[in-house]
Amino acid sequence: MTRLPPLTLALALAATALPAAAQDAPAPVTPASVVAGAPASDWRAIDPADLLVMTLAPDAAGQPRVVTIQLIPPPFSQGWVGNIRTLAKAHWWDGTSVYRVVDNWVTQWGDGEDDAAKAKRLPAGLREVPESEYTADAPSTVTASGIALYYQANAGAQSPSLFNGRIVFRGQKSWDYAAYAAGFPYSGSMDPHRSLAWPIHCYASVGVARDLSPNTGSGAELYTVIGHAPRQLDRNIAVVGRVIEGIEHLSALPRGKGEAGVYSDPTLRVPIVSVRLGDELPAADQPKFEYLDTDSASFARYLEVSANRNDPFYRVPAGGIDICNAKVPIRRVKP
Amino acid sequence: MTRLPPLTLALALAATALPAAAQDAPAPVTPASVVAGAPASDWRAIDPADLLVMTLAPDAAGQPRVVTIQLIPPPFSQGWVGNIRTLAKAHWWDGTSVYRVVDNWVTQWGDGEDDAAKAKRLPAGLREVPESEYTADAPSTVTASGIALYYQANAGAQSPSLFNGRIVFRGQKSWDYAAYAAGFPYSGSMDPHRSLAWPIHCYASVGVARDLSPNTGSGAELYTVIGHAPRQLDRNIAVVGRVIEGIEHLSALPRGKGEAGVYSDPTLRVPIVSVRLGDELPAADQPKFEYLDTDSASFARYLEVSANRNDPFYRVPAGGIDICNAKVPIRRVKP
Repeated sequence: MTRLPPLTLALALAATALPAAAQDAPAPVTPASVVAGAPASDWRAIDPADLLVMTLAPDAAGQPRVVTIQLIPPPFSQGWVGNIRTLAKAHWWDGTSVYRVVDNWVTQWGDGEDDAAKAKRLPAGLREVPESEYTADAPSTVTASGIALYYQANAGAQSPSLFNGRIVFRGQKSWDYAAYAAGFPYSGSMDPHRSLAWPIHCYASVGVARDLSPNTGSGAELYTVIGHAPRQLDRNIAVVGRVIEGIEHLSALPRGKGEAGVYSDPTLRVPIVSVRLGDELPAADQPKFEYLDTDSASFARYLEVSANRNDPFYRVPAGGIDICNAKVPIRRVKP
Repeated sequence: MTRLPPLTLALALAATALPAAAQDAPAPVTPASVVAGAPASDWRAIDPADLLVMTLAPDAAGQPRVVTIQLIPPPFSQGWVGNIRTLAKAHWWDGTSVYRVVDNWVTQWGDGEDDAAKAKRLPAGLREVPESEYTADAPSTVTASGIALYYQANAGAQSPSLFNGRIVFRGQKSWDYAAYAAGFPYSGSMDPHRSLAWPIHCYASVGVARDLSPNTGSGAELYTVIGHAPRQLDRNIAVVGRVIEGIEHLSALPRGKGEAGVYSDPTLRVPIVSVRLGDELPAADQPKFEYLDTDSASFARYLEVSANRNDPFYRVPAGGIDICNAKVPIRRVKP
């Protein structure tokens, strides 16, 4: 197919490649080719216990709709992640719905009932998580000395760079940075007065909807990002994971026309049949995924090539990359 | 409605406000309140001659679908914009379709036929636009002295700042920046050896699909961004405008399952009934929009408030903003 902007990596992995360069030239190195060539030892299994499998009602054509969410690992947002495990084990989301869709913003699901007298009763054992848990101590593999980093790279500047063997993005201030830990992007501040880190929003991130601060939400009402990363929500809302398969079942829904993008027409609500932790499913049905180790040489090369595209479609390599455009490669493992 | 992440500005303007703060506190200043309070003199009319009105076939429920696109003003991409005017005047898009939708990437429309023997014949008078027109001389209102700017701001750093009365985003290199000209975001380099500027991709930007470089596309096949801004396409593809109304008719379509996200099921293609320049329509039907002057004090205040939210939902103001999250306010003018 011609006249097409190139595919994103995730799709390029599955799709037929674009036309190759002239046969006498070496095959171009692309983000997809780096990922395809990564040795098995650079991939890490995702524990099914860290996955949520959300089954929606079939679509109008009767096609199944399953959304798989990976919960964020420590040190981030573990209070809410714990609540989400409790909610899933209680099968609390069964019979709730996707009830809010705002273009270039979020799709949201859960009970969606404001009136406390009508709201679905929450299970026992949920924690009230304080705002202090929006941030955490920085993952220990990032150290303080000499960091000069950061995140949303721009065209022609801000390449990711290596520091102590870690890939980091330089910040405007010398103490601000972004990096990856255990396969997730995060940001942090090495300000000597407060050494904090926090998970960041990207497309398909999953977060905990809430009322006005200081409420932080229980984890029962969740949203996923379906547009440009809302950076202003970082540290203001809990990021608890990301959709790793089936985002199109949430991003391609009709936009809501009620207040705040809620479906005023209740027939548009998408019924949630069930939400299960992956390890609650029968062994044969447990989802098996791997992510490319963000500490690996393959991932370093993937970032470098992503930031400096020189395959035939491109004429000006950006020389940098936005961390939300450098998505951590994830693949389904064949059983 | 509670338990909601806050609305984006564009929607907040239309929707009921979130619950107000306690009555004894002054009403919080928000991006929406700044825009609502901007004097009439800070708004600029968009010439209907610079709008494309794309009418799609009605949706499955029989509802009309109209997408309005604003063409980018000089100095950017005028070769392609000229072609697009020629194509629209020839009614070339009538009977073509939306044929490609890739999640977190683009929705694309036009003829979509690779086989030159089968492709729809293009009208006379189209230019072959060279790659050199991906960049332009920087708009004259940005000057060189002392620029220390730039664009994708991060949490806690990279606030937009004022320079020579212009709002700019600081770059990693002292000569890279982003700013706004005539209501559109762009980026540039003040490198003394090449003082260039170029339009940038954001959500809802419209660009010219093309084959491999050095092909630049005629303008007949167009796409719009439906995900995180693909910064790597800047200077590699022509940005020719943006969708200012009706993006949901392109972003909420089913994702394509064929090669490169093309609809392999041709019944999914969305017929394009017509595409017209706004000034070709009967006077009563001409679309009337205004944008907030990006050189105005209101816009400066809008950016400052957007970068430093302190209304009750927020607990940590970001202290900066990504230029693609600082969308230029646009409003429909009542006839």
